[in-house]
Amino acid sequence: MSKKKGMPSGSLVHVGEQKMKDTEITIMDFDEDHFEEKKVKDVKECKRYKDKTTTTWINIDGLHDIEKIEELGKFYGLHPLLMEDILNTYKRPKYEEFEDHLFLVLKMVYRDKKNGQIIKEQVSVVIGENFVLTFQEKSGDVFDPIRNRIKKEGSRIRSNKADFLAYTLIDAVVDNYFVVLEEFGERIENIESELIDNPEQETLYKIHNTKRDMITLRKSVWPLREVINGFLREDSHLIRDDTRIYLRDIYDHTIQVVDTIETNRDILSGLLDLYLSSISNRMNEVMKVLTIIATIFIPLTFVAGIYGMNFDPDASPLNMPELDWYLGYPITLFGMLIIAVVMVIYFRRKKWL
Amino acid sequence: MSKKKGMPSGSLVHVGEQKMKDTEITIMDFDEDHFEEKKVKDVKECKRYKDKTTTTWINIDGLHDIEKIEELGKFYGLHPLLMEDILNTYKRPKYEEFEDHLFLVLKMVYRDKKNGQIIKEQVSVVIGENFVLTFQEKSGDVFDPIRNRIKKEGSRIRSNKADFLAYTLIDAVVDNYFVVLEEFGERIENIESELIDNPEQETLYKIHNTKRDMITLRKSVWPLREVINGFLREDSHLIRDDTRIYLRDIYDHTIQVVDTIETNRDILSGLLDLYLSSISNRMNEVMKVLTIIATIFIPLTFVAGIYGMNFDPDASPLNMPELDWYLGYPITLFGMLIIAVVMVIYFRRKKWL
Amino acid sequence: MSKKKGMPSGSLVHVGEQKMKDTEITIMDFDEDHFEEKKVKDVKECKRYKDKTTTTWINIDGLHDIEKIEELGKFYGLHPLLMEDILNTYKRPKYEEFEDHLFLVLKMVYRDKKNGQIIKEQVSVVIGENFVLTFQEKSGDVFDPIRNRIKKEGSRIRSNKADFLAYTLIDAVVDNYFVVLEEFGERIENIESELIDNPEQETLYKIHNTKRDMITLRKSVWPLREVINGFLREDSHLIRDDTRIYLRDIYDHTIQVVDTIETNRDILSGLLDLYLSSISNRMNEVMKVLTIIATIFIPLTFVAGIYGMNFDPDASPLNMPELDWYLGYPITLFGMLIIAVVMVIYFRRKKWL
Amino acid sequence: MSKKKGMPSGSLVHVGEQKMKDTEITIMDFDEDHFEEKKVKDVKECKRYKDKTTTTWINIDGLHDIEKIEELGKFYGLHPLLMEDILNTYKRPKYEEFEDHLFLVLKMVYRDKKNGQIIKEQVSVVIGENFVLTFQEKSGDVFDPIRNRIKKEGSRIRSNKADFLAYTLIDAVVDNYFVVLEEFGERIENIESELIDNPEQETLYKIHNTKRDMITLRKSVWPLREVINGFLREDSHLIRDDTRIYLRDIYDHTIQVVDTIETNRDILSGLLDLYLSSISNRMNEVMKVLTIIATIFIPLTFVAGIYGMNFDPDASPLNMPELDWYLGYPITLFGMLIIAVVMVIYFRRKKWL
Amino acid sequence: MSKKKGMPSGSLVHVGEQKMKDTEITIMDFDEDHFEEKKVKDVKECKRYKDKTTTTWINIDGLHDIEKIEELGKFYGLHPLLMEDILNTYKRPKYEEFEDHLFLVLKMVYRDKKNGQIIKEQVSVVIGENFVLTFQEKSGDVFDPIRNRIKKEGSRIRSNKADFLAYTLIDAVVDNYFVVLEEFGERIENIESELIDNPEQETLYKIHNTKRDMITLRKSVWPLREVINGFLREDSHLIRDDTRIYLRDIYDHTIQVVDTIETNRDILSGLLDLYLSSISNRMNEVMKVLTIIATIFIPLTFVAGIYGMNFDPDASPLNMPELDWYLGYPITLFGMLIIAVVMVIYFRRKKWL
Repeated sequence: MSKKKGMPSGSLVHVGEQKMKDTEITIMDFDEDHFEEKKVKDVKECKRYKDKTTTTWINIDGLHDIEKIEELGKFYGLHPLLMEDILNTYKRPKYEEFEDHLFLVLKMVYRDKKNGQIIKEQVSVVIGENFVLTFQEKSGDVFDPIRNRIKKEGSRIRSNKADFLAYTLIDAVVDNYFVVLEEFGERIENIESELIDNPEQETLYKIHNTKRDMITLRKSVWPLREVINGFLREDSHLIRDDTRIYLRDIYDHTIQVVDTIETNRDILSGLLDLYLSSISNRMNEVMKVLTIIATIFIPLTFVAGIYGMNFDPDASPLNMPELDWYLGYPITLFGMLIIAVVMVIYFRRKKWL
Repeated sequence: MSKKKGMPSGSLVHVGEQKMKDTEITIMDFDEDHFEEKKVKDVKECKRYKDKTTTTWINIDGLHDIEKIEELGKFYGLHPLLMEDILNTYKRPKYEEFEDHLFLVLKMVYRDKKNGQIIKEQVSVVIGENFVLTFQEKSGDVFDPIRNRIKKEGSRIRSNKADFLAYTLIDAVVDNYFVVLEEFGERIENIESELIDNPEQETLYKIHNTKRDMITLRKSVWPLREVINGFLREDSHLIRDDTRIYLRDIYDHTIQVVDTIETNRDILSGLLDLYLSSISNRMNEVMKVLTIIATIFIPLTFVAGIYGMNFDPDASPLNMPELDWYLGYPITLFGMLIIAVVMVIYFRRKKWL
Repeated sequence: MSKKKGMPSGSLVHVGEQKMKDTEITIMDFDEDHFEEKKVKDVKECKRYKDKTTTTWINIDGLHDIEKIEELGKFYGLHPLLMEDILNTYKRPKYEEFEDHLFLVLKMVYRDKKNGQIIKEQVSVVIGENFVLTFQEKSGDVFDPIRNRIKKEGSRIRSNKADFLAYTLIDAVVDNYFVVLEEFGERIENIESELIDNPEQETLYKIHNTKRDMITLRKSVWPLREVINGFLREDSHLIRDDTRIYLRDIYDHTIQVVDTIETNRDILSGLLDLYLSSISNRMNEVMKVLTIIATIFIPLTFVAGIYGMNFDPDASPLNMPELDWYLGYPITLFGMLIIAVVMVIYFRRKKWL
Repeated sequence: MSKKKGMPSGSLVHVGEQKMKDTEITIMDFDEDHFEEKKVKDVKECKRYKDKTTTTWINIDGLHDIEKIEELGKFYGLHPLLMEDILNTYKRPKYEEFEDHLFLVLKMVYRDKKNGQIIKEQVSVVIGENFVLTFQEKSGDVFDPIRNRIKKEGSRIRSNKADFLAYTLIDAVVDNYFVVLEEFGERIENIESELIDNPEQETLYKIHNTKRDMITLRKSVWPLREVINGFLREDSHLIRDDTRIYLRDIYDHTIQVVDTIETNRDILSGLLDLYLSSISNRMNEVMKVLTIIATIFIPLTFVAGIYGMNFDPDASPLNMPELDWYLGYPITLFGMLIIAVVMVIYFRRKKWL
Repeated sequence: MSKKKGMPSGSLVHVGEQKMKDTEITIMDFDEDHFEEKKVKDVKECKRYKDKTTTTWINIDGLHDIEKIEELGKFYGLHPLLMEDILNTYKRPKYEEFEDHLFLVLKMVYRDKKNGQIIKEQVSVVIGENFVLTFQEKSGDVFDPIRNRIKKEGSRIRSNKADFLAYTLIDAVVDNYFVVLEEFGERIENIESELIDNPEQETLYKIHNTKRDMITLRKSVWPLREVINGFLREDSHLIRDDTRIYLRDIYDHTIQVVDTIETNRDILSGLLDLYLSSISNRMNEVMKVLTIIATIFIPLTFVAGIYGMNFDPDASPLNMPELDWYLGYPITLFGMLIIAVVMVIYFRRKKWL
């Protein structure tokens, strides 16, 4: 963020790490009867789709090649501030309405097929009359099933306009939150059973990390509520009434995601409490054993110490006469036993044993 | 949830575990004078009730037979997204209005008569002009008293329309929350008395589990407020004014349920604090005993250790002359007694004893 | 609550424990010039007051005699749901408006004169054009001063209508919250001084119980805000403008009660923290004494142990020659003293002493 | 509060402790050219100022002389409920509008010049067309600078009306919150440095008390926001537009006071956490020393104990032959040294030393 | 703050510490074609810019020279309360609208280039038709890049009016929050890794201090939301529609800053929990070692103590006959070994080892 400090607003700077080598542009152009897909290198190739009545989806992977993106933006008449938001990958999810296009920033969260890691990536969506532009940080996304559906003749996307395509994209993003949340649900259950079986320092770190993940996820999803609500309530001609009912459905999903995150946070707080109590319970148990062993043997050892003193019985009949008694040793041992037994009974009474 | 990932919205997939073998359809058709009940296997049999002026309640148990449910849905003109919601048993309670029917998703919570377990099940309710459709995950529900009342001639349900029937169903669902909450109330009281008598690790788990149950229950009930409020404020011709006053009553009940859940959570937090304090209090007590025994006997044992040293009195008159004193042993014992008594007095003063 | 499960709404069932033997009905009828009071057994006797222009206050103590209450309700045209609310003593405070009467449920909290216990009782108030009905769980209430004022000719109640009488009753209920809160205030102060002087396990339970009482009281008072606000904003002809200014005053009082409860909860949380810290501070102190005694004497005892070993000086000149030294014993004792002094100084430095 | 229980509302009873002997009435009457000040004993003397066009400020110190206050109230046409609020010194800050006067209850918090204590006192302000009445619990207040400004010819107060005078009084009250908050800020800083240098039980009480003071102060200031907001938005002819801009300024100040109180509470919570962690850290340190000393010397003492046993070497060659070895003693001492060194190294590794 | 106590409102007093010696006034006057910059000492020099159509930015560094500031304020017709706010450097961020100018108070937070410290400074901005006045506490700010852009012919600022200049200034202030927050992010990460590697008392203070910084920063930024929202929604002719879209962008940024602060606070709370648990975990570990060593050796030492007693075998055959057994010593040692091994196995089972 700090490298943009002091620049005029609307300055196009890529904020975030470069995640792929070359910017890839994929064009999908379709209507009910027709379908065309191609990967292009030159932005100019996009231009001939602009005035066609077909729906065009232009997907850009990689945001570091500012020139290309600027060219595309100018061509579609995007506002400089909008362009700036696309390039800043630390943007909060947002929704903004312009005269002839709508703009959304979303956070896409999904599990990478290759290495199983959870990936968070920003997707910016521009929705126009007959086009949808999507800007991603890197190739690989959650849109493959949509691409397949577009290819399939007769699918609902093919017979609808750009607004429905945009809905489908947002839906795919939101659906993946559920998938990720399912995984977190499992992780939390694992932590819980670990907690009850054998709480370790490691368990604490797991709770902490999952809590942090929840905070981060929440930061991505929470503003989405307003975003989709804004989008839904938009009085723009770009959104048709048929699509609106579908948007309402996404809104419901978003609420449910937020709900689940909040519930998870509550549960994690409960688990932390449980962890702390388990630890202090265990310590208690350890302490009790120490106390019992120590309190039983300390007085006994003292008694043994007494009769280990070297007072000279010859010097005086008062000096440890017990040592010469006939039953001195057995009585002493028996006395010690009595002391030990009394203590054990006392501890039993106190419920320490 | 993850198995729906990537499918177009409105795809009918059963999300949730299959809880019974066959889907059962029960039709109850009635008006003031007439009553008919039958279990059918074929959805087609429902069709002839559609245009009758009588009120028809079609209850479907079991959601895995998608074909049947889809057929029924198409017949009654239900929106694909609504159908999708019915089949997804992880839905948040919701309310949606369509042109000629209203749609509610509820969470039914009740104690199973057979095994006494608390069961949570999703119920979707579709309310039309002269019909009510209810979709449940499995047979067995909280609606038996309503069925009996429908059978009884002259009951208020018989003389009312579909909207009143729907109200009665929702009312039964909400009433069962109270029953379940009563049980939780008892459970909390048991935990409390256990806490004061003899707090165990087990008590901690009980608090934790009840807290978790409260979080889950809250997740089911909290959205119900908005659901019933939305339903209540609905300007639909499907809800008559007479019924509205009854809906207001349910709304009150829902508020009271939410209130009780919040109160229970507060109390459980208090119990957790109490548990932790009791544990640390007990530890304190144990520590005090250890400290007192140890601090009294450690110096005494030291003294005994001194006179157990083998310095040779013959080598020098300075080497342990006490051993040869006439009163050496009694004086030593008396000195030890003094030390012990002083310490006990000191601890008494400090209020440690 | 569970015994009402499955009954049609509007079923009249007494929910709650029966607190007195017979239902008692007391009628007070008055206007500026006239006053009449009588206890009746038969509900029919109430009927002749209905069409009089005087104000009639009918107070019913005891809710278990459903027939009587139903008869009275029917006579005054009360809605079945309203009747149900009256009989359910676990109702949340609520306000409802009907065409020709207003309905309020309140929680009366007061200290019983006989045994000094704090009693919580539900009062339902129905306000009509020229009558006020109050339903209580048992005889004994906070309304005696009002009864006296009604008896006194020239009092403001006598010269006003039913709405003012209702206001006076609500005011009495709210005023008693202050009285009860004052007691809680004193209790909290006692706990606080106990905490500083001598915190016990008992103190913890006191904090916990007072906290719980606050939660319960809050549950009774919190909804009262909306109740009185609703009542105040009511556009009903049953409330005259003169009375409205008095209702505004009650509203202020309710806010103040809620405020005080919240403050008390904050203070009690603070006290719990204080308790826990005091306990852990004390434990610290105990631990320090143990540590100091033990760490000073353990090394000394070790030294004594060394010279208590029985190595045979005769077998080798290297075996414990110290035992035969002329100054062996004094040097050893002096060495021990040095060790002890060094340790004490070290602990002083560390501020443990 | 409890002494008012059961009295009709509007009953004039002084609630609170009597803080001065006689009620003192001070009249200041002024306009741009004219100024008059006098202390009167008889309320009747106030009357002649009522119809003058000059602005009159009547200040009453001491609320126990109900007759005087009632006389004054009746003379100025104050509502009985308003009078009741003036006399109840436990009132929450409030604002109420009447037809020809406005009424405010404020809490004045200031440091007494004589003994440096912080004093909390209730001030009720009644604002009319050409008069301001202020009712205080005792003499001594924060208004002296205002009195001086009134006396000074040409000051803004002199050239304005009663609404500006009222503004000035409220402003003085709010300004003093800042002064008191500054002191609390210093107190918090002292606690913080004490915490880091040397946390004591005493520090805990300081944190607790300051927290409590914050809760109390918050209770006085929080409702003030609504009070001043209500006063500001008032559409009354009694407040001129010029004054409104000044009221907006006070509103800002109130927000800032509330803000600071909240920040202080957050900081104090942080300090409590810090205290608890410091205490548990210290305990840790103490425990570590105990553990290290004990764990090093306990095994050594055991070894010494072994060789202090009196098994008879003469009875059997297996009985403690080490005692007769030539190097028995040095080897034993050396072995002990090795044990100690190994343990120290182990503890170093574990970072316990 | 306390030095203003008792002064009439609108009194011009500098509240805050004087941070530079002389007040510096810098004038920048520009339009599309023209640019002029000069530092002046005399306020009168500002006057000739007032009626020019060019945009004038007058920046004042240092607020202690009240006369100059008052002169400037009077010249531009600023309200006395506005002037008072400028001079009070403890102001909460605020926005206020006057007839022909708008007024904002902002908190500028930036890292000083020279010593790397984070500096917090108040900036007041007055926006008129063709001028912007900025008042700062001392020289050095975040506006240098803006100054450079103004100097550059053809920049967007040059071709816009005062409202755009004001926007640019606010934008620079908000942008610097991100820079500071990035630093805090790094600090938090450092704390986190320190916590896991080696938690120290020092780490606790770091968490505490960062938490406090967050509280302070939040206090500066939180009100900014309303400020910029107010500014944005302002229906003033002073803000042109083109600028509004830029203000919306700042609003988004402010929300993001607030969001990040909240997230940081959540994370810091988590870190505190983690710290406390780590500490108590470590203590547990220490305790376990103590317990194990002590509980193993205490009984063994007791046994050794027994056989160190000096009962006289000659006085009676019952007195310690073991001492004369042939295998007495080896059996004793072996017995001790057995005791030790059993204990170790027991502890292993209990998972304490």
